[in-house]
Formats: sequence, structure tokens, C-alpha cells
Amino acid sequence: MSRPVTLFTGQWADLPLETLAQKVSSWGFDGLELACWGDHFEVDKALSSDGYVRAKRDLLEKYGLGCWAISNHLVGQCVCDPIDERHSRILPPRLWGDGDPEGVRQRAAQEIIDTGKAAKLFGVDVVNGFTGSSVWAKLYFFPPTTQDDINKGYEDFAQRWTPILDSFQADGIKFGLEVHPTEIAYDIITFQRAIDAVNGHPAFGANFDPSHLIHQFVDPAEFIHEFGDRIYHAHIKDSRLQLNGRNSILSSHLDFGDRRRGWDFVSPGHGDVKWDPIIRELNRVGYQGPLSIEWEDSGMNREFGAQESLAIVRKNDFAASNVAFDAAFAKE
Amino acid sequence: MSRPVTLFTGQWADLPLETLAQKVSSWGFDGLELACWGDHFEVDKALSSDGYVRAKRDLLEKYGLGCWAISNHLVGQCVCDPIDERHSRILPPRLWGDGDPEGVRQRAAQEIIDTGKAAKLFGVDVVNGFTGSSVWAKLYFFPPTTQDDINKGYEDFAQRWTPILDSFQADGIKFGLEVHPTEIAYDIITFQRAIDAVNGHPAFGANFDPSHLIHQFVDPAEFIHEFGDRIYHAHIKDSRLQLNGRNSILSSHLDFGDRRRGWDFVSPGHGDVKWDPIIRELNRVGYQGPLSIEWEDSGMNREFGAQESLAIVRKNDFAASNVAFDAAFAKE
Amino acid sequence: MSRPVTLFTGQWADLPLETLAQKVSSWGFDGLELACWGDHFEVDKALSSDGYVRAKRDLLEKYGLGCWAISNHLVGQCVCDPIDERHSRILPPRLWGDGDPEGVRQRAAQEIIDTGKAAKLFGVDVVNGFTGSSVWAKLYFFPPTTQDDINKGYEDFAQRWTPILDSFQADGIKFGLEVHPTEIAYDIITFQRAIDAVNGHPAFGANFDPSHLIHQFVDPAEFIHEFGDRIYHAHIKDSRLQLNGRNSILSSHLDFGDRRRGWDFVSPGHGDVKWDPIIRELNRVGYQGPLSIEWEDSGMNREFGAQESLAIVRKNDFAASNVAFDAAFAKE
Amino acid sequence: MSRPVTLFTGQWADLPLETLAQKVSSWGFDGLELACWGDHFEVDKALSSDGYVRAKRDLLEKYGLGCWAISNHLVGQCVCDPIDERHSRILPPRLWGDGDPEGVRQRAAQEIIDTGKAAKLFGVDVVNGFTGSSVWAKLYFFPPTTQDDINKGYEDFAQRWTPILDSFQADGIKFGLEVHPTEIAYDIITFQRAIDAVNGHPAFGANFDPSHLIHQFVDPAEFIHEFGDRIYHAHIKDSRLQLNGRNSILSSHLDFGDRRRGWDFVSPGHGDVKWDPIIRELNRVGYQGPLSIEWEDSGMNREFGAQESLAIVRKNDFAASNVAFDAAFAKE
Amino acid sequence: MSRPVTLFTGQWADLPLETLAQKVSSWGFDGLELACWGDHFEVDKALSSDGYVRAKRDLLEKYGLGCWAISNHLVGQCVCDPIDERHSRILPPRLWGDGDPEGVRQRAAQEIIDTGKAAKLFGVDVVNGFTGSSVWAKLYFFPPTTQDDINKGYEDFAQRWTPILDSFQADGIKFGLEVHPTEIAYDIITFQRAIDAVNGHPAFGANFDPSHLIHQFVDPAEFIHEFGDRIYHAHIKDSRLQLNGRNSILSSHLDFGDRRRGWDFVSPGHGDVKWDPIIRELNRVGYQGPLSIEWEDSGMNREFGAQESLAIVRKNDFAASNVAFDAAFAKE
Amino acid sequence: MSRPVTLFTGQWADLPLETLAQKVSSWGFDGLELACWGDHFEVDKALSSDGYVRAKRDLLEKYGLGCWAISNHLVGQCVCDPIDERHSRILPPRLWGDGDPEGVRQRAAQEIIDTGKAAKLFGVDVVNGFTGSSVWAKLYFFPPTTQDDINKGYEDFAQRWTPILDSFQADGIKFGLEVHPTEIAYDIITFQRAIDAVNGHPAFGANFDPSHLIHQFVDPAEFIHEFGDRIYHAHIKDSRLQLNGRNSILSSHLDFGDRRRGWDFVSPGHGDVKWDPIIRELNRVGYQGPLSIEWEDSGMNREFGAQESLAIVRKNDFAASNVAFDAAFAKE
Repeated sequence: MSRPVTLFTGQWADLPLETLAQKVSSWGFDGLELACWGDHFEVDKALSSDGYVRAKRDLLEKYGLGCWAISNHLVGQCVCDPIDERHSRILPPRLWGDGDPEGVRQRAAQEIIDTGKAAKLFGVDVVNGFTGSSVWAKLYFFPPTTQDDINKGYEDFAQRWTPILDSFQADGIKFGLEVHPTEIAYDIITFQRAIDAVNGHPAFGANFDPSHLIHQFVDPAEFIHEFGDRIYHAHIKDSRLQLNGRNSILSSHLDFGDRRRGWDFVSPGHGDVKWDPIIRELNRVGYQGPLSIEWEDSGMNREFGAQESLAIVRKNDFAASNVAFDAAFAKE
Repeated sequence: MSRPVTLFTGQWADLPLETLAQKVSSWGFDGLELACWGDHFEVDKALSSDGYVRAKRDLLEKYGLGCWAISNHLVGQCVCDPIDERHSRILPPRLWGDGDPEGVRQRAAQEIIDTGKAAKLFGVDVVNGFTGSSVWAKLYFFPPTTQDDINKGYEDFAQRWTPILDSFQADGIKFGLEVHPTEIAYDIITFQRAIDAVNGHPAFGANFDPSHLIHQFVDPAEFIHEFGDRIYHAHIKDSRLQLNGRNSILSSHLDFGDRRRGWDFVSPGHGDVKWDPIIRELNRVGYQGPLSIEWEDSGMNREFGAQESLAIVRKNDFAASNVAFDAAFAKE
Repeated sequence: MSRPVTLFTGQWADLPLETLAQKVSSWGFDGLELACWGDHFEVDKALSSDGYVRAKRDLLEKYGLGCWAISNHLVGQCVCDPIDERHSRILPPRLWGDGDPEGVRQRAAQEIIDTGKAAKLFGVDVVNGFTGSSVWAKLYFFPPTTQDDINKGYEDFAQRWTPILDSFQADGIKFGLEVHPTEIAYDIITFQRAIDAVNGHPAFGANFDPSHLIHQFVDPAEFIHEFGDRIYHAHIKDSRLQLNGRNSILSSHLDFGDRRRGWDFVSPGHGDVKWDPIIRELNRVGYQGPLSIEWEDSGMNREFGAQESLAIVRKNDFAASNVAFDAAFAKE
Repeated sequence: MSRPVTLFTGQWADLPLETLAQKVSSWGFDGLELACWGDHFEVDKALSSDGYVRAKRDLLEKYGLGCWAISNHLVGQCVCDPIDERHSRILPPRLWGDGDPEGVRQRAAQEIIDTGKAAKLFGVDVVNGFTGSSVWAKLYFFPPTTQDDINKGYEDFAQRWTPILDSFQADGIKFGLEVHPTEIAYDIITFQRAIDAVNGHPAFGANFDPSHLIHQFVDPAEFIHEFGDRIYHAHIKDSRLQLNGRNSILSSHLDFGDRRRGWDFVSPGHGDVKWDPIIRELNRVGYQGPLSIEWEDSGMNREFGAQESLAIVRKNDFAASNVAFDAAFAKE
Repeated sequence: MSRPVTLFTGQWADLPLETLAQKVSSWGFDGLELACWGDHFEVDKALSSDGYVRAKRDLLEKYGLGCWAISNHLVGQCVCDPIDERHSRILPPRLWGDGDPEGVRQRAAQEIIDTGKAAKLFGVDVVNGFTGSSVWAKLYFFPPTTQDDINKGYEDFAQRWTPILDSFQADGIKFGLEVHPTEIAYDIITFQRAIDAVNGHPAFGANFDPSHLIHQFVDPAEFIHEFGDRIYHAHIKDSRLQLNGRNSILSSHLDFGDRRRGWDFVSPGHGDVKWDPIIRELNRVGYQGPLSIEWEDSGMNREFGAQESLAIVRKNDFAASNVAFDAAFAKE
Repeated sequence: MSRPVTLFTGQWADLPLETLAQKVSSWGFDGLELACWGDHFEVDKALSSDGYVRAKRDLLEKYGLGCWAISNHLVGQCVCDPIDERHSRILPPRLWGDGDPEGVRQRAAQEIIDTGKAAKLFGVDVVNGFTGSSVWAKLYFFPPTTQDDINKGYEDFAQRWTPILDSFQADGIKFGLEVHPTEIAYDIITFQRAIDAVNGHPAFGANFDPSHLIHQFVDPAEFIHEFGDRIYHAHIKDSRLQLNGRNSILSSHLDFGDRRRGWDFVSPGHGDVKWDPIIRELNRVGYQGPLSIEWEDSGMNREFGAQESLAIVRKNDFAASNVAFDAAFAKE
């Protein structure tokens, strides 16, 4: 009756999937959200090798784990981004190729289409990920930046992603953009703008993740309220302000984990996110998919954290009311 | 005894300097901080034409106005920036040239050197401005960004600006970087990093401006305390948070003046900046230069605002104590 | 260029109008918002006596005062209210009659129609006031109260006020409801509901008054933003929370002026209302009518307060920007 | 040693008592606070039928449940209220009769006397409930309302309730008014006024319930401190502010559960009530009665909520200190 | 009609009285509160020399200044204090003598009696000052400190001060203790305890000073409300928290003016004190004495500050209401 | 892998050690921090009697308990304090002697040296305690107090404690000062000053205890960050503000447990201390010693509290991360 709780494997890609599955199963998780890197879920093999997806499912079933979504943030990022050397580090050579930006972007776009096809084969109907953005870097409007300049970014997004979304739709797959700084959408205003840019394409929605909203001072529950029917997946992740008059909310080009940053990611329950209003809104909009823990905390033991997070999610995931109170008292 | 109050002319470049000087004088300002665009202060003419700087001084003196600094933000921005079409809009054709990025950057660097020389001719010893930054756009560390990546940006800054600073120093000119998002330094941490990058070059300091710090949650008085001997100039400018759970502190790629932004510039006294602690710290560190109003408020009449700002600065600019209290009571 | 500042005469009805006009004029006000009680503006006389409105205008002109609105809160209150003995104290005998509730309500409704006609004769196009409400007293939903119960109250309002509004519209008069607890609308939600109840009747709008919103924790600027084209008049009035863990926001059935209340009215500038965002929104929505000080503070000398309030309004009433900043800097 | 935890049955009156008892017992509750509606506790039957109260006790004992109080809010509400059609929905026909207000009030008063007698038969010494109020609806003092007007309401309360309280006292029963908006007392000030109105009648006290105080900004622990010896019973219930600048603390005539309200009831631990100071004060004043969960949350599954609430109460109910610290350290 | 505004001369004792009087008069003050050190008001001379007080009055009148109180904090401090070398610095040799603690305390007590007599001669009826305290230093209860230990301090205070207060009363003089850390009373609780210790002696009251309360988080207006009839004099002085997570509210044994302190004195209007509620309470309790600026701000020019303070007091000192609002509207 | 959790026995000295050990063991603690009073750890016996320390160890081992530190706050307090009768209550007669202050101080100093020797015999390398202070009582700088006055206090501390610290160092013992009001150091500034006074003596460090910092508004995590390598031991203890405008942060010379105080000690988890940042900083600085619960809460049952505290510590004590996140995602 309560929602399945999964672990997103992206931060555990240093472990072979089976090792991870065994751990996660013993901790009591219901399933995994597989990252399309490491050996967790390989799109090319899924499409090219007959038994690949079956073998993955078998492995998960061996440990009693389900899977409701696969995620391909790294490749998605390259679809719209201006490409620089950092992208070479997150792509396999077959996609990086010669590194020519437009070529990289086009190969990335095709890989995302393929990810949708692989998802279908694998039997999940949600692909999460990033989109990249040609205008993110123009965030602060200096040199003077016009709405025309920004509109071009949204048009570029629409042009590159509409074919992907069409392909997804044809296969019954939904794309959940993890709304996130560096992407075409990172808050309520820009996600609406992105939806409008693709004319409300039904395959385009959100992988809701409060950790990217809360440090922007955006109320995560308000995001769910606003985009109720486009919440295709949900991450459980937390972040925390650590402002003291000397720290900047922009975080000073410092690494995650540096205490001089203005905010940082922390294990769920250790940050500023309030879970009750989120669960309440997820109930109101009827979201019944997994609550997927994306675990990242530079100051905590990873295995301790994953288990504590699971306990916290289980404790906080309550169902909606099934009775109506007549104001305060049942009628006689 | 109190500090001179000037108006920065950058936001008034649509008015001929004389028109502006006449207004500003009648409002009671002590002087102007001349922008190096419009006809306010033209570097090329100052260096090439014998009487140019004398004529400027005469014009100011005609209206009883002083000048303690000139400012060249627009050209400075192009010294380190990755160049895109927005830069073409802020540069004169002679500097934009064919728009080849490296060429633009080098011509901009030379122009800043020339600005220093023009300042010397004109008789001021502070040039304010921007530096640009090759790494600003990598602010949010995704795709994964290493400190090596960022260090390259500071090295680039040091390489391009050290010759400029050397030239300034030779001429007795100080450069006041307006610490500001989009620049090599925008908060306490990054300004320190920039100082370190140029090995504490004595010509390198700050044009202190609280409006760019306060919306980052950086305490402006703390900035002055930290960098007391490098405060070469000071702007009076204000900004204000307008967060309500739906707005993002990152301001959603929206224009200034759009009420859906998470913060915006407002006329001094209408925002979140507290002036008392700033004046107190300026007193403590011994800053005796001008308080220069950079006026920008998308929701207020400009002339009303400039006059109100002047009144606010006059009211708030108090001198340090010249007696010592023996704790609470003078000794008998 | 700035808006006229008037004084609402309702709290000064103990003074003959001429006495008040003389004072107010000497203090520097631009005009009066006449209350339809005391001898300030008598609707019956205005309609029955030829020279009445001319004489009023003459009196105002003698003191250099304008008038942009008349206000009839007391009679308006009786149009929809369940009538009790308190209403007898705010009505003249000709309207109270035998006190039969439905008779009182109907006579009050007719008097409001007449007030519109008198306003037309007098040459103002705004009548401010209250509406009363048959459901206000059911505010807290116990005994259990359904939306059907509440809807009846809005239907009653529509039925009683539509004829009034039609008459106003025919005469070119607008009705400004002072959105206020005890009325059919007292916040953003209920004012929208009231507008919907009269099908968006063009004669129905608001006499904006922040003092009734702020202690409800409703942001007054948001109210203006939401109902921009229905702001027909504006009061300058302030209120203040005085909560300490022992006081109730519901104010404990205590008199105004009792310090044990959870909030109280105070002179403008002494309360929780922030004027800058209000002026900014009034500018955005294009409101150019008077700023009318409704002065009420149980703890301050009335004449001191009226003059201080005028000074505060003058100081805070700035005009909108008439230049566009190109982000931060005018283009070269 | 810790206090018994009971569930108030008022919000579960749709379930037959035995069904509820079975559930509640299996969840680990210590007992029930029986509502005098549904089949939970029927006053008329208790007084007229020989075996009724014995059978109720047997049923409770069958499931190992105790009972320390019965509650008759619905009838109590009708003792002082102006009666309207909403009251017909909360009364049985034998009490509503022809609906003539004074008749309803008098029958309700007699029923409360009978409730005390039934309580005595049943073997509990606390009856909780409401009082109604003839002046609640005059909360906001417009039309102008005098202290004389309000005093009449307290006199009416005293006149109607003194006979009830006398009867209770004769039977050794205490009445715990659930201090609550819509009642004669809803905060610290008004509860004192009500106590004074009945001359400090020893049978008159409070059913302490923090959920009705906290959204008024009244500190619940302060309430206990103030009225320590009149805390006759205690509810565990929670409410939460959801103010965002658009919502009103008065809740806009919206149903419970509507997210546009300014506050709403939520399951204990999900709201603004802090339990530690409440337990601490209950310890200080020596309250040893039950902690009775009145569960109401429009956004949560009822059975999940009741169980979670029980766990929260158990966790938070600590005993007072039984040692004295000699400042910080025991003496040597 | 508004209260006289005076300057306390204690922090100006480096200036001869005439120099100070001339300045203060030119700034627009109404008078001085004379300190009994420097040459401002010498108790011994006032009692021994015939023309001394007449000459002082003449000097004040020459500059149009009044005087409503004299103040002898330094000597008063020595009445109850454990005496150490710091006291030698605040006493004249004739009072310090051989420095034997009990002798110092007794001479100080006699000097305060004499101060009252001198005040009478001079024609003022209020003497302000300190009391010292034998238990202040035991503030933090370690080593373990009992109420018996503390009671001894209040008994000592009563024993030493009752004769002084009796003498004052005989002469029609009131003593205004500046409630202040280091004294027998420094907040609401301890001032009540001190009043009780002297059995409510009518000559014992407060020189209200909000700057010593606000950094203790005591609401100054609440202090006035609590002790309305014992407010014998009022200081206008301000202090400000400067807490940032590194500073201690106990101020770390650092000098005033050190920015690392947790709080510091600042010029009125620059600190945390809110003047409106103070004026309102002074009005409510009927205080009509002077508002005496005790100016102390380690970071501001003294002469600037005194003048700004005067302007702030003038602006904030409003009178009570002299009309009753009938709720919101005058009756017709 | 996680840190051992111990109970400090100081507040349980009314119980024989074996009784306490049995309880604590059954509750699941890992060990005890023994107080050097009661029969818990007697320094004189440890040094004079052969089997004493062995017997203590045997007793602890019998209950499976470890010991990592002993604590001698009471005697330490007397090393630097001005001695008054309160000290007689915390010292044994052999140390109090005739009560002559200097004699008491010297005997106390020797006893602390002996405590170090006893610790060595017992096999622990940390002694916690207090230092006393000759200047604490001069906290509030009136009568005027100079830095010279204060410096004398730090010199006195250095003179008295350096021999102790030298002896400790020779024996491989570290002294953990519980930074605490009434001691030579009570916050960040004063602890640094104390370290400087003893020239950074390696035997001098902190027994970190957040309950003494948080009510001073000092961030406990910042303290750890600042003094990472001098955190020799850690207490888990909590305190809580209870300010309401009437209470003073200085706590009004009221006993612990009096609700009118501005703050009070409470059981861990019930106060203002946030444990996550503390654990995070302890991890960062590499502290691996015990987390020792010093339990003190005047409003809670002691045995309930100790057990709850243990559970809270266990829940909150997480280890540092042992993987590096590459920003947000592991590299492919």
C-alpha cells in the first residue's frame, strides 16, 4: 500500500551491480533505480544482446528487488550543453568520439532515444535524466542578456528533445527530467518554460528531487502541487544551507563537502527538506511510483547513510486519508 | 569631514555628461564616478586628444563636482570572458573587431591598460571595473568539475591581469574590482583566491558594492573587515530578496524588474543592505574615499531615486569616535 | 505627479467638517475622503437639497482640498448582516426604523444606491464601504459548516448587491469594498469568491487597506498584484502584531487599545505594513487615485498622528521607472 | 508510572464501538475516551437501562481497555449557542425537537446534567465537552462592540452552566471544557474570564488541547502553567500553520483539508506543537490523567495516524525528576 | 506637551560643564542630567558652599537648560560591592580613603545620602545611580550556589540602602536605580526582588534604561508595564547584538567597541531597541519626566551622535490619544 | 567502529559506584567517565592504596564497562578561584583545611597533579575538569575594567596551571578543560586566550561540551572546527533557551529548574543543540574518543533520561565518508 523504496545506483557505480544488489536487498530496499553507467545498465548491450535485459531482471529477482525506472543523466547532459572537456569524462568513447561539440550532442541524443528503447525492453516505463542546456551558463544576466537570448536556449532544447520525446511516447516511455541547476529547467518558472517549449509534450515530466530546489529557496511541495500530473518519478535526497554571513549561496566554486560552501548535499533527514508536506502533496496528486533514494553526503559513511535513509523514508511515507471528517466530528 | 558622495554615471549614459552634471550638481552631489562609455569618459580620446581631460575637468568644475575614480566595467568584462555575441553589444567596434575571442580579449586588456593611463592624465588614482572570468560559467559543479579545472581559471586571470596591474602600479593607479557574480571574484572566498592568484599585487583591490553580496547571503561588513586595506572604492547600491517559496534565488533566467525573480536591485534604503555596520567597518579600516551611488531600480523613477539615495547616504555617513570611553564612564 | 493624499474623515466625525478641513489643510493634505456620517456628507440632504453638494465643494475649495471618494461603511454593513442591536447604534433612526432585520437590510441597500447617486451629484466616481455578510459569523467551521452553507452567504450577497452595483454602473460610479474581516470578503480567497459571486461586475472592486490584511498574514502587495484592475481606492492604515505566547491572534474579545490583544491598529509606519512593496505594486498596476489615510491608533495623539502619517506617505510615494535598464548598464 | 494513553472516539463514530475497541487494543492503547454519539456512549440509555454501563465496561475490559472520561461536545455546544440549522445536524431528534432556539438550549443543558449522572454510573469522574457561546460570533469588534455586549455573553454562560456544574459537583464529576474557538473560552484570557464568570466553580476546568491554541499563537505550555489545577483532562492533537503570504490565518471560509487555508489540523508530531514543554508542564502541575489522542488529519490514513500517534506519545511522555541536582554537581 | 529631552553628562566629564552646556544648548536640548563627577555636580561643594548650587543653576539658565535629575552611579556602585582596586579608580580620595572595603562602602553610603540632600538644595527630586551588589559575581551558579546565598545579598542591599532611602524620602527625593548588570537588579525578576527586599520603599524606583535590558532579551516595554509607578527617570540608550555563531552573548571579557563581542552599546536608533513600544508604555503609565540621552557608542563621533539622538527622540516622542475610538468609527 | 558511549558519573555520586555500574551496563553503555568525588574515583586512595585502581578496573570489567577519562571538576575549580564559603562545600576537609584562600588554591593545584598521576596508574590518558578563574567575576566591565586587569587573570592561570600541565605531560596525560562559564575559558575567544596564556601547552585542551556554548549563542560545531586538535574529550549535554521577553539570558540569579530562567539544561535531544553538525565536525577533526553523556535535566526522571540519551547518541553517531563522490556522479 505504501510506495516502493528504491536506491538510485548512480553513486554506487564503483560496485558491481550484484554486490550492490546483495547489500541493498539485505538492508530491506524494494528495488533499484538503475544508472546507465558502470555495469548497472548498459544501453548498447541491452539493445544488442539478446539476453542482457533478461539477465538483469534475473539478477534483481534473485535478490527480491524490483526496478521501476532507469536513469541516464550523464548522456542526457550532453544533448544540449556547450561541450567542453568535462563532458569527455562522463561519456564513453563511443559517444565522445572526436569531441566535436555538435557530433557529441547528436550522438548523445541518439543514445537517449536508445535508452528509451532499452527501457521498453527491460520493462520499465520511466527514464530519468538530464537535458543539458545551451543557456544555463548565462544565468546571471551580465553581460546584458535579453529574453531573446534565453528563448534561443529553449528553442534549442525543444528542437533537440522533441524527437526523443516522440520516440519515447511511441514506446510508452516517459522522460523524467531531474529538475536541477545546469539543466534547461531548475525551478518552477523554468520547468514551466520547458514544458511550454515542447508544447506540453506528454512524454516530458519531472523526476522530482527536493535537494535541488530547497537550496534555491523553492518549496518542494509547491513544485509538486504545480506540476502534479507531470511527476513521473521521485528522488529522496536532501541538502542543507550552511550560511553564516561569510558563505555564499553560490558556493564559491568550492567542492561538495567543503564546509565553506553555502549549501551542501546531506543524507535525507539531515538537511532542510521537510518530508511531511512532500508526502502529503504526492498523495494529493496521486503519485504512486517509487520513492528512490539518491544518496550523496560527503560527510557520512555511505552504507550507514543508505540504511538510515531507508528507515526514514519508511517512517515518513504515509497514505492519504480514506475517510472524510465532517469538519471536526462525525455526525450522530 | 564626511566622505564625498558621488554618482556613478554608468546607468545615465543615455544623457550627455553636461546634462547629467547639471542635474547632479543641483541635487547636491559632491561629484561623479565617470563611466568609460557614452560620452562620459572616452579612453581613446583622453589619450589622443590634448585638451580632452582638461575639458572634462572644466565641465565638472563648472558644476562644482569632483571626480575620484573612473570605471570601465564593460571592457574589463571582456579580458577573461569566453566571448559570445553579448560582448559585441558592450564593446565599441574598434575593440570588437572581427569578434575572434582571443583577439577581443587582448584588445580589451590593452584598453584597460590605457584606461589606467587616461586616469593618470585625468588626475584620479582609482579605476573600477570588471575582470570577466573563464570559469564563472562552471559555477555549479556539474558536469563534475575539479579544483584543477577552476585553478586554470585563476591562472588565466593572473596571466591576463598581472601586466595590467603592473602598468597601473607604475602609474600610481589602483584597480578596484567590483566583486560581483560573473567575475573572477564574487564573494569573500573567491576574492581571496583572486588576490592569491596575483600574489597579492598591491594594485589589485575592490570596488566594494554590497548589492552583489547581500543576495548571496554574504555579510557586506564582513567583507570590508576581511579586506580592509584593499577597499579602494565603495559603491552604495542595494538589492532585496523577494522569496516566497515559489521564487528561486537563482532568479530563473528572468529579467531584472520581473517580480518572479528571487532577488532584485532596488534603490538604497529599500533593500536588505544595512548601512550602519558598513559605515562602521569603513571607519574601522580607515576608508576615506567617496561613497558612490550606483543607482539601479527597475521599479522607481530614476531622478527621485538618485536624490533620495543622496539624502540616505548623507544621513548614514557618520565619523568614527574620537574619544575613548573608559568602559561606561569617564574617570573622575 | 505623485498621488494626492487625503484623510478619511470617519474617525473625525466628532468635529464639524469645517473645523476638520481647516486643520487638514494647514497640515498639507490634498483633500478629504468624506464619511457619510456626522455632518461630513449626508446622503439624504445631498439628494433632497439643491445647494448641498455645491456648498460642500465650496467648503473644501475654500481650504484648497479635493475629494475623490465618499464612504459609507456603516450603512453598507447593514445590507447583508444579520441585524442585532449593535446595528442600531450605527444607523440613523430613518434607516433603523422598527429594527426588523429584513426591513433594515432593505433600507440600507436603498441608501447605498442613493449614496451612489449623491456621489455622482457631488462629482466623485468612487464610493467606498462595507457590505456586511450573512456568513461571516460562521468563520470557524464548528458546528460543522459545509460549503453549501457558505455558498448561501455569497448568493445572498450577490442578490442584495447586484442591483446596487447596476445602479452604480449606470451612474459611472465604482464601489470599493474595504476588504475587511466581518465583510463578505476579507482576504485574497474571499475577495475572488465575492467577485465571482457577482460575475465580475465591473462596478465591484476594492478599497485596498493593508491594515486588515497584514494581521491575517496576507501580503498586501500580493493582494494588489492579484486584483490590479479592481483597486478602485487605497487606504493608508497600519496594524501590528503583539504576540508573546500569551496573546491570541483572535484578540480575546478585548477592546482595541488593550495591550493583551494579539494585534492592534497603529499609526502608519508604526506597524507591520511595509510601504515600499505596496507603492511598487500600485505603480505596476497603474493605480493613480488618492492615498487616503484612515487614521486610527488608540495609543497616539490623533493630530500628531495625522501629520506624521502625511509625512510618511509623502516620503514613500515614489513613481515608477521611466527608463529601461539594459540589465545593469546602458549600452555603449 | 507513565500516563495512560487513550483514543478519543469522536472521529471514529462511523465504526461500532466493538470494532474500534478491537483495533485500538491491538495497537496498544490503554483505553478510550468515549464520545457520547454514535453507539459509543449513549447518555439516555445509560440512565434508563440497567445493564448499559456494565455492558460498556465489559466490552472495554474484554479488550483490556480503560476509560477515564466521556465527552459530549455536540450537545454541550448547544447550551449557549445561538441555534441555527447546523445544530440540527449534530443533535438527535429528541434534543432538537421543534428547533426553537431556547428550547434546544434548555434540553441540551439538561442532557449535559444527565451526562454527568451517566458518567458517575459508568465510573468516570471527568466529562469533557463544549459550552457554546452567545458572543463568539461577535469576535471581531465591528459593528462596534462594547465590553458590556461581551459581558452579557459571559453572564449567559454563567447562568446556563452554573446549575450544570453544581449538579456535577454533587456527583463528584468535573467538567473539562475543550478550550476552543467557537466556545466561551478559547485562549488564556477568555478561559480566565469564564472561570471568573462562574466564580471559580470547582467543577469547571479544561480539557487541555494544544491544537486549538497553537494556531492562535498561544503557547500551550503557558496555558498549563497558568491553569495548572484546572487541567482535568488532556488531548493530544496537533495543528500547523501553512502561511505563505496568500493564505489567511482566518482560513478564508475554506474546509479543513484545503491547502489554501492558513492552518489545518495534522496528526501529532506533524504540526507546530512541541511536546516536550507540554509534558514538562503537565509534570510540574501534577497532572496524572490520560493523554488522549484526538486524531484528525485530512491528509493522512486514519489507522496509520492513530498508531504513529500512540508511538509518539509513548516516546514523549517522560516523568519528572525525582532527584535534586545541587546546581550542577552532587556534593562530595 | 512632549517630554523634555536631556543629555546625561557622565560620558562628557572630560569637558568643563560650561563648554558642554554651550554645545548642548546649541544642539537644541532642553536640559542636562548632571553627573556627580568631573566638575558637573560636586556633592561635597554643593553641601558646603553657599552659592554652589545657585551658580550651577545660573550656568544652566544662561544656556536655557533645565535639570530634572542628578546622577551618582560611581559612588552608588561602592555601597554594596565587594571592593577591589577598580573601585579606587572611580572614587575620589576622600571616599576611597585607605581602601578598606567596609570603610569604603560606608563612606559611599553616606555620600549617597548627601547626594540626596544636595539634590534637594539644587531643586531636583530624582537622584539616579547604581547600588552595587554583593552577589552579582555569583551570577552563574557554580560553585553550587543556593537561594540562601543569594538572599544574603538582597538582605545586605536592604540593610545598606534602607537608611539612604529613608533619608531621601524625608527630603522628597526618589532614587532611580539604573537597572543594569553588576547591580542588585538587572532585569524584571531581580528588580522585583530588590523592591521586595526594601519592602516596597516608596523612594526606590528605576532609572529605566533599555540598553541594559535588550541584550538580555528582556523586552523593555514589558519592564515599564510591570513597574509603571516606579519609573522615576528614563534613559535613551541603545545596544545591539552582533552574534554570528562565533561571538558569545557574554562578550568574552572583551572591551566595549571590540567587534568580537556578542553585543555592544550603540547610538540610539542604531541598535535593537524599538522606541515606539517604549513611548507607548511610558504614555500608558503616565511618565512625564525627561527622556535623557545617555550617549555611548565606541564607533561613532560623539557630537554627531548626540545631535542625531536628539532628533530621533524628538521624532519618536508622541503623546497618548485624547479621544476614544468607538471601535473603528465614531457613532453617527 | 562508532565511538564508545560513556556516562559521566558526577550527577550520580549519590549512588555507590557498583549500583551505578550495574544500571549503566544493563542500559547498554560502553563505559563510565568517573568523577573524582563520592566513591567513584578517589585520588588519594588511588595513590596511597596498592589495589585501589585495580579494584576499580575489576568492578568496571565485571559489568563490561570501559573507562577513558576521569574528571575532577570540583577540585580544579579551586585552583584559580577567589575562594569563598561555597568552595568549602565542594572540597573534602583535607583540601579545604583552614579555608585560607591561597592555601586552598595550592592544595587544589597539588591535588590536580595527583589526579594526573592517579589517572596514569588507572590507565587513562585524559583528565577532565575545571580551572577556576580569578577574573570570571569581572565579566561585565563595570566598574571599568581594563585589558590589563583581565590579563592578570590569564597570567595567574598560566602560573598556576603550567606546573600541572608539565606534570601531566610528563605522565602522558592530557587535561580537558570543560569550557564553561565560571572558568578561565568559556567560549571560542577565551579558550584561544587561555591556550595562548600557556603558550600552547600540548597537555592543555578541551573537554568539549555544547551545553555551555549554545546558550551563549556560540556554535558548538564552530568550536570543534577551531580547536580540532585540542578536543581531548567530548560531553553530550544539552541546554535550551526559554526566552519570552520577560526572562533574561543571564537567568536572574534563579536556580536551575526554575522556568523563569532564560535558559536551562535539558536532556540531550530536548534542547537547542544540533547533533549532526557536531558529529560531522568530530569526524572531520578525527576525534575518536568517547561520547560521554553528562546527564542533567531538572524536569526529567534521571533513569529515563540516561537511557533515552544513550539511544539518541547511538542514533546520531555516524562515521565519515570513505568514498569520494566525483561531484555528483561516479565517473563512468
